[in-house]
Amino acid sequence: MTALVALTTDFGLVDPWVGIMKGVIATRAPEARVVDVTHGIPPQNVLAGALVLRHAVPYFPPGTIHLAVVDPGVGSERRPICVETPREVLVGPDNGLLSLAAAAPPARVYHLKEGRFFPSPRSATFHGRDVFAPVAAALATGTRPSELGPEITDLHRLQVPEPRREAGTIRGQVIYVDHFGNLITNVPRSLLTNFPGEASSISIRGTRVSGLSPSYAAVPSGRPVAVVNSWDHLEIAVRDGSAAASLGAGVGDDVIVA
Amino acid sequence: MTALVALTTDFGLVDPWVGIMKGVIATRAPEARVVDVTHGIPPQNVLAGALVLRHAVPYFPPGTIHLAVVDPGVGSERRPICVETPREVLVGPDNGLLSLAAAAPPARVYHLKEGRFFPSPRSATFHGRDVFAPVAAALATGTRPSELGPEITDLHRLQVPEPRREAGTIRGQVIYVDHFGNLITNVPRSLLTNFPGEASSISIRGTRVSGLSPSYAAVPSGRPVAVVNSWDHLEIAVRDGSAAASLGAGVGDDVIVA
Amino acid sequence: MTALVALTTDFGLVDPWVGIMKGVIATRAPEARVVDVTHGIPPQNVLAGALVLRHAVPYFPPGTIHLAVVDPGVGSERRPICVETPREVLVGPDNGLLSLAAAAPPARVYHLKEGRFFPSPRSATFHGRDVFAPVAAALATGTRPSELGPEITDLHRLQVPEPRREAGTIRGQVIYVDHFGNLITNVPRSLLTNFPGEASSISIRGTRVSGLSPSYAAVPSGRPVAVVNSWDHLEIAVRDGSAAASLGAGVGDDVIVA
Repeated sequence: MTALVALTTDFGLVDPWVGIMKGVIATRAPEARVVDVTHGIPPQNVLAGALVLRHAVPYFPPGTIHLAVVDPGVGSERRPICVETPREVLVGPDNGLLSLAAAAPPARVYHLKEGRFFPSPRSATFHGRDVFAPVAAALATGTRPSELGPEITDLHRLQVPEPRREAGTIRGQVIYVDHFGNLITNVPRSLLTNFPGEASSISIRGTRVSGLSPSYAAVPSGRPVAVVNSWDHLEIAVRDGSAAASLGAGVGDDVIVA
Repeated sequence: MTALVALTTDFGLVDPWVGIMKGVIATRAPEARVVDVTHGIPPQNVLAGALVLRHAVPYFPPGTIHLAVVDPGVGSERRPICVETPREVLVGPDNGLLSLAAAAPPARVYHLKEGRFFPSPRSATFHGRDVFAPVAAALATGTRPSELGPEITDLHRLQVPEPRREAGTIRGQVIYVDHFGNLITNVPRSLLTNFPGEASSISIRGTRVSGLSPSYAAVPSGRPVAVVNSWDHLEIAVRDGSAAASLGAGVGDDVIVA
Repeated sequence: MTALVALTTDFGLVDPWVGIMKGVIATRAPEARVVDVTHGIPPQNVLAGALVLRHAVPYFPPGTIHLAVVDPGVGSERRPICVETPREVLVGPDNGLLSLAAAAPPARVYHLKEGRFFPSPRSATFHGRDVFAPVAAALATGTRPSELGPEITDLHRLQVPEPRREAGTIRGQVIYVDHFGNLITNVPRSLLTNFPGEASSISIRGTRVSGLSPSYAAVPSGRPVAVVNSWDHLEIAVRDGSAAASLGAGVGDDVIVA
């Protein structure tokens, strides 16, 4: 089976940056297949990138090489790393980006210090091209993660906002807004399932939604609706519309379940 | 020959939704090749998706599996279907999206009821991941459409606005605006060819264009021009510019040929 | 080794135009692999396309077939061409788009006159589908550039703005702004290296940056910084921000190094 390299970045698709990384991979690992997870992570938003990776990685085949770059610290002392989980390999900067996807032990983490895997000199502004793509190509052609550099144990981990239980309510917040304007919260299905009340009221930005619905289609067009979404999280949507626009809501806004 | 799966959605490329579908296909049909038609269908605009499919499908190889998702009714009673034409296979929701590409008989339509082809439980918000991508992968690995569920005969068909002949004129309308701001109308070449007049005047939004030109380059930079475009439809453009912006025109605007 | 076709256009990804070109290639060259460099060239901006190609092409494997379309003159007398360099092949319109990537002699240029390689009739608005993709597919299946038409020697070349040395200063300008708002100038590293002064002051739009930094991370968050970027050009950025937005700067703005 040929290797699969999956790309997640904040590079956007307007510039040639993603294309150049694919050129590097095609040059160094001609047999590898390359798939885009997304290049639309908000620029330099490491948390958004980490959340996307956490929820996308399980849908890729075992053995996938995930190359992820959201890297505001490029050129600084932040380490380039490779994370090897029992199921896949992740390559990227050690700024928390890989830490949610790698959350389940026993992952092993390697500091990409072996210079023979990437070109010299390398730019100080584009490690996607000069460090991470070459390393992903090396992995795709059979290099083992342990060959890439010394193992480290102090992976940089992200602080993800957690929902809180407070006197009969759950206080969560919006952590991701998608292309449709759907508002994904940090409240997981498990918390709703064990909620002693009936989640009969869900409030955000002054709008009150009456309980959980099985799907968007449970309400009339243009009305807000709360569902458990494909991440198994509470999501506020507007049927046939944008909840972000209609409710004036976005990342960081509180959501109260009562 | 390995299977080819072509994707058309309104998911955009900012989120990981398309990437996750590709992960599902790579997991279930590792040999399949995947190509994007576009993910830029305006959100929940089934007619735009259907038009794009109609004009794109003929340029793909025979046997292509077209996976299309513009699905405002996800989670409702709308049926997931597979359409088998003599030339290709289409998978998506039964809301009209596939009906223009499938217009030529004798297509066969199957209701995707055989649950063994997709995971359980499945989300109520993301059938692209949980129903359509798994079914496309099943088709890519040799499943026949008739195995996916019972045949149905009441495919949901779309009402496409038709141009009208009126007292020496053709009254059409803009049905699609592209990235360049070109205004594609519902007036086909055949109607213009058989027009008794000379199509000497084409009017839209108060702007009058003098007849059909062989190409954009027939007029000076910045001037409006009417051509028969790559869909074999009448199109109003502005050379080196955007007709949508210059003329303040968009989908639904009338176009009068006289 | 299967052929690799790399695409660079101004078609954007909202419409099906890129997907349709991929369908044509998949039909005519089923074994070819296709990679996107970018489809985000600003509409009809031939210079931006030529710059992107110049800086992306070297990162693709030898033998890559580059299909590039930024083609405001489609349908006019501008010639469709194929450029064969010692390292790769480029296909596109003869409007300067290919001329920077092909700058190094001894490239050979062919006028795509051999109609047998593309369908007839062909549209006057979409040569990407009807001329360039079919020709790229022909190359991918073993056609030699010299079979595509007669050799020509008068390749259309672009005028690229050059930086000037003036009394102890370098006067350059911004030639490209990327997704992050980074301002890429036409001042190459070589000019900075040989600069008799110390490049201690770099000015743009009334903002003065103190000298070159080794990386974005050399300055605090939110501050402007000048680096030599991945094109080996002088670039003005704002750490964790957008220099284009912060400085109100864009393509064509002067940059003074003193």
